[in-house]
Amino acid sequence: MRRSALLALAGFALPACVALAQPPQPASDQAALIAQFDGNIRPGEIRDFNKLLSAEPNHVGSPHDKANADFMLAQFKSWGWDARIEEFQVLYPTPLDEKLEMLGPKPFTATLQEPPIPDDSSSTAKNPALPAYVEYQGDGDVTAPLVYVNYGGFDDYERLEQLGISVKGKIVIARYGQGWRGLKPQLAQDHGAIGCIIYSDPADDGYSVDLPYPDGPARPSQGIQRGSVMDMMIYPGDPLTPGVGATQKAQRLPREDAPTILKIPVLPISYGDAAVIMAAMDGQVAPANWRGHMAITYRVGGGDAPVHMMVKSEWSLKPIYDVIAVMKGSIWPDQWVVRGNHHDGWVFGSSDPLAGQSAMLEEAKALGAMKKAGWKPKRSIVYASWDAEEPMLLSSTEWAETHAEELRNKAVLYINSDGNSRGVLSIGGSEDLQKFAGRVMTGLTDPETGLPVADRRRARLQLASGSDHTRFMARQAADPAKDMPIDALGSGSDYTPFLQHLGVATIDFGYGGEGNSNGVYHSRYDTFEHHSKFVDPGFVYDAMLAKTVGRAVILATDADLPIQHAGNFADASAQYVTELKGLADEQRRMAEARLTLLTARAYERAADPTKPHADPAPLKAVPDFDFGALEQAVDVLKKSAAAYDGAIAAHGGKLSSGNRAKLLTLMQSIDQSLLSEQGLPGHSWYKNLIYAPGRFTGYGAKTMPGVREAIEEESFEDVTKYVVLTAVALKAYAAKLDQATALLQQSS
Amino acid sequence: MRRSALLALAGFALPACVALAQPPQPASDQAALIAQFDGNIRPGEIRDFNKLLSAEPNHVGSPHDKANADFMLAQFKSWGWDARIEEFQVLYPTPLDEKLEMLGPKPFTATLQEPPIPDDSSSTAKNPALPAYVEYQGDGDVTAPLVYVNYGGFDDYERLEQLGISVKGKIVIARYGQGWRGLKPQLAQDHGAIGCIIYSDPADDGYSVDLPYPDGPARPSQGIQRGSVMDMMIYPGDPLTPGVGATQKAQRLPREDAPTILKIPVLPISYGDAAVIMAAMDGQVAPANWRGHMAITYRVGGGDAPVHMMVKSEWSLKPIYDVIAVMKGSIWPDQWVVRGNHHDGWVFGSSDPLAGQSAMLEEAKALGAMKKAGWKPKRSIVYASWDAEEPMLLSSTEWAETHAEELRNKAVLYINSDGNSRGVLSIGGSEDLQKFAGRVMTGLTDPETGLPVADRRRARLQLASGSDHTRFMARQAADPAKDMPIDALGSGSDYTPFLQHLGVATIDFGYGGEGNSNGVYHSRYDTFEHHSKFVDPGFVYDAMLAKTVGRAVILATDADLPIQHAGNFADASAQYVTELKGLADEQRRMAEARLTLLTARAYERAADPTKPHADPAPLKAVPDFDFGALEQAVDVLKKSAAAYDGAIAAHGGKLSSGNRAKLLTLMQSIDQSLLSEQGLPGHSWYKNLIYAPGRFTGYGAKTMPGVREAIEEESFEDVTKYVVLTAVALKAYAAKLDQATALLQQSS
Repeated sequence: MRRSALLALAGFALPACVALAQPPQPASDQAALIAQFDGNIRPGEIRDFNKLLSAEPNHVGSPHDKANADFMLAQFKSWGWDARIEEFQVLYPTPLDEKLEMLGPKPFTATLQEPPIPDDSSSTAKNPALPAYVEYQGDGDVTAPLVYVNYGGFDDYERLEQLGISVKGKIVIARYGQGWRGLKPQLAQDHGAIGCIIYSDPADDGYSVDLPYPDGPARPSQGIQRGSVMDMMIYPGDPLTPGVGATQKAQRLPREDAPTILKIPVLPISYGDAAVIMAAMDGQVAPANWRGHMAITYRVGGGDAPVHMMVKSEWSLKPIYDVIAVMKGSIWPDQWVVRGNHHDGWVFGSSDPLAGQSAMLEEAKALGAMKKAGWKPKRSIVYASWDAEEPMLLSSTEWAETHAEELRNKAVLYINSDGNSRGVLSIGGSEDLQKFAGRVMTGLTDPETGLPVADRRRARLQLASGSDHTRFMARQAADPAKDMPIDALGSGSDYTPFLQHLGVATIDFGYGGEGNSNGVYHSRYDTFEHHSKFVDPGFVYDAMLAKTVGRAVILATDADLPIQHAGNFADASAQYVTELKGLADEQRRMAEARLTLLTARAYERAADPTKPHADPAPLKAVPDFDFGALEQAVDVLKKSAAAYDGAIAAHGGKLSSGNRAKLLTLMQSIDQSLLSEQGLPGHSWYKNLIYAPGRFTGYGAKTMPGVREAIEEESFEDVTKYVVLTAVALKAYAAKLDQATALLQQSS
Repeated sequence: MRRSALLALAGFALPACVALAQPPQPASDQAALIAQFDGNIRPGEIRDFNKLLSAEPNHVGSPHDKANADFMLAQFKSWGWDARIEEFQVLYPTPLDEKLEMLGPKPFTATLQEPPIPDDSSSTAKNPALPAYVEYQGDGDVTAPLVYVNYGGFDDYERLEQLGISVKGKIVIARYGQGWRGLKPQLAQDHGAIGCIIYSDPADDGYSVDLPYPDGPARPSQGIQRGSVMDMMIYPGDPLTPGVGATQKAQRLPREDAPTILKIPVLPISYGDAAVIMAAMDGQVAPANWRGHMAITYRVGGGDAPVHMMVKSEWSLKPIYDVIAVMKGSIWPDQWVVRGNHHDGWVFGSSDPLAGQSAMLEEAKALGAMKKAGWKPKRSIVYASWDAEEPMLLSSTEWAETHAEELRNKAVLYINSDGNSRGVLSIGGSEDLQKFAGRVMTGLTDPETGLPVADRRRARLQLASGSDHTRFMARQAADPAKDMPIDALGSGSDYTPFLQHLGVATIDFGYGGEGNSNGVYHSRYDTFEHHSKFVDPGFVYDAMLAKTVGRAVILATDADLPIQHAGNFADASAQYVTELKGLADEQRRMAEARLTLLTARAYERAADPTKPHADPAPLKAVPDFDFGALEQAVDVLKKSAAAYDGAIAAHGGKLSSGNRAKLLTLMQSIDQSLLSEQGLPGHSWYKNLIYAPGRFTGYGAKTMPGVREAIEEESFEDVTKYVVLTAVALKAYAAKLDQATALLQQSS
């Protein structure tokens, strides 16, 4: 769809037409630059972008997806960027036909479509929304009894076994939440289930949480969460082109051989439908912590009442459109600051991703205005509006794989954002960017409280509790001598190929926690109306995101010294090793305690004799691991980091331009030292030895994942191997620091 | 009602008519005695007792309450006991008129009565059940908006304050659970509320837990939990006669001056009614952990929608009937083993209390048979069927207060039971009875698994986790060198006046955890049909209770040595002191952490600015307490205990009959050493310095309560005082042990 048509459809003035507020004059210093940037960030324009981009369904393959890309391309160009669309061809199945029905005495057919809500984009859009589906499920037509598997995680199957229930040959029904969506059907399939239904329980994002939309922000009874169920733990991106870009000419796997596509059919449903289907289930009452908030008795099922489900998809390749816009650097054009946000949504996608996308457009507009006003960025800036993030980071992955060599040699930093809402700033990234993140926050003021954004973030960190690492971060946040900590990154957005496949230093920003978008997450009701009423009224936090990322872009682009600060990374590494040792100790204690209880036959004796019972399986005895190599590497790193940070402070300002260029080139790739070519066990596409998504838990970060997951998964033979590999990586990082320190000391 | 009429009503044969199974011959030893006893315990007879006693509503003042007492009196007499009815006159208000209605746009009137269920006693009984009520509320007629206060505990009011909500002049609605019922209206009143509604959330005992009755055991939508809301933490028993028996001639407080009666009206309601009323509430969405499982958005209310509630009661004195049956001891007639269970229910009371009551009758029948067969118990046995336990331990308290002096001089042990169900044996009591409890369990076989009852209990203890004390008990249970631990007693049944007011050694037995009676707890549906279908089909666990308590009675009655074993009590005391020190340390850490966060303004800065917010109040700084006196007393106790236990083992068998009598007399009152005349701060009726119900938490036990509650309630000036008093008590206990040891050593 062409832009003019798209605009006619949306029926409002072009945001790009607004005049630039700042007079075209060169900014004399960084503070002035930032003031100039901020002056060009206007919530009303972000609102207009959002309204336009979210006016129609914009999933991969939809007319509006292409129209949005074309619109953005024109915008970038109009703002003075060197912009183009990069297209890839990816496997993206869409539903042709689907059915979910209860057979038996009370026949019932599930809705599988979300009815329009008056005065909402869901009722005003002209293009159709696809019915309920999850991406990369396996198609099929199956009839079998249902088994309720709670969240469908590892522990849940362990519990089912103790309850004497098998899912073999059955269809499972799992609730959304507590771990990554894709793990639910994957584990169901691994346990022999022939189909999988995933529903949104009102306890997690429905009426329990708030009034349902349109009265409030929460999920209405017919709201459905779409999503990808690709086995992203093998690799993300196009299933047919692992490791290489999905260009027209790329070699493709046959669909049957693509390991990231499921074999069984999967359907997502609403709690309106789930309440009817699950009220008819039989079998034992579900364990206490399996019970959601529907007004029914949750039962595990497994009896006679059969359910029929059918999913049939259209499996052709679809084009996806990355809008890539470049502003060339004046001093170090071969050092790139890459900044991305995706533009595809599951339906309208107003909060996810268009809140972030609209903020990014506003940034690009403001940077364009600064350039026109005379600003010459020292490094090159690359803005990327990704397509097809939702099916699993498709276009960012394909782009990163296509440009891997260039990125390895040029990318200084990848800056990401995604959905956004009212609330407090979250920052995730490599810990060597902690001080950089602190500089980004400087001078940012929360639009509703008038407090410094940094103060609100610090307060949230201080109040958090839970894991050892959360408490470590709370202590760091409370210590005025420390830089405010940032979160390690797992996955769930476009930074993954940069950070975890290529080792590019990465940072991710987003506001959240006070605007409830969970209730419409990945549903047809994530609309402009919902976002502007409940998620970010006035678009002031979306504007804050633009200001925040704008600072990051400007600071990274114009920095005369490397953006990394090594001490924080050394401290974090030391903490991670402490956590690993604690994890091994705790797991050893648990294995011993379970063995004691099994030997004493305690589980069996305490069980209700009228209910099926099986003892929990014994845990593998945990040997004493030698973490010495890792501890020694951390000591080396600490010393190198202290020397480097000291040398930067002492000599950073005195560098000759030759040595400065050498230093910047050296440090551009330092985070790549943390990769290992052989990657992580079982998912070798993931090469970063410090940060990874959990192989069996999904988006949440696993730090020092080779060691951590080897302990957690009882692959004890891998522990020592990855202790050594991780130690080697830390020492390689330290060695680069030492080279940099030497360069700096030459300047004195 | 006379017995004959009662039997005609129930329409089945008199249980007392069954022939005695055992031939009348003297039992030659303890094992034979127990075998003889067991042979007389028949589930079918217990079933018949239960059916008869629960055929009609039997609350205080009902015709069936009196008829049951008369029936039992006749039974005891027919079994050869010297039985009588002791009558007291107590204040027991009953509802005359009541109303709960929503005014405003959607008028609604709550049901306040539980409809009969076909084929259930609720439909076949001839006498009326009283409508929904809680006992010792304050009557009133009030109209005000509702505020939801979650469970209505201390933390909930703290949270409300942070949410900017006051209950002053409002009616509060609280859910049942998480602490004692009576604390809910008490705290509401303390915070200025003018009325209180308590409802049963389906999350806690309704459809979430199991299928509702009659399809399953759980609470149906119209089920209502009655109960006492007396301020029992001041004193239990008749509100008008604190500290003395409520005999005809007793001096009585004017009702207005009785401190244990509430001032505001209170009504209990069903979740069927609560769902309608709470769905109409306005205000903020309730915090996440305040949300139950009704299919509504839980909101805190406080806005305009007014509710009208009215309770009017009839406040006359009512007679209550204790059935007291004595079997005189042959050697030490002035040493009493007292065994009690109450007979009044809230309506039919089949599980609570008649499961225990019917077991107790069966015991009395069996002991009567043994006596007829020639058994001469060495001590006197006193069986007590208490009335009016439900309104708050009325008749046990009045009886204990009336006979205080005699009990102090004669009671060796009080053995209690109450409701009962399928499952695992629970034992609560003074830890010096731990070894005795182990002897009681010897030879008991679980009727469904065929496992030793002790093994199932041990397995449950081993699997438990949670508090420090639970883990201490789990370790003890796992250690073959230790006696299996028993639980400390708080309150909620008739042992309280014996243990906590008089210092009589006390033990409580009950099976449970596998028969779901929670769903009908204190409702009209706690019927014979429910009990026999869901709680104890076949009445085999009620029979197990009879066998268990029968062993306890026989062992205590015929023991030639004191039943106390001091080492376990010394170990438990040491553990309690460790816990107290940990509590103080943890509370100090929390106070410091909160102060840090308040000083950093973290709560305020992290709060959503669109919602009302108030900082949590600072916690009082916790000083360093000197636990030295208590630690030293525990050391003394440990030494004395070791010497005593050793002396019993070495010389117990060699005592002269004179010294044996001296030893038994000395040890009869040893647990009274643990009392302090001044009692606990704020509730001086409670005199036991080791065991008490929680002053602000209800039934759960607080051990070393003078010290523990002083720390918890920040009454730090009381900590040292009660450290000293508790140390004095432990030393007094130790001194008695030393006297006993000296007596024993004279025998060598």
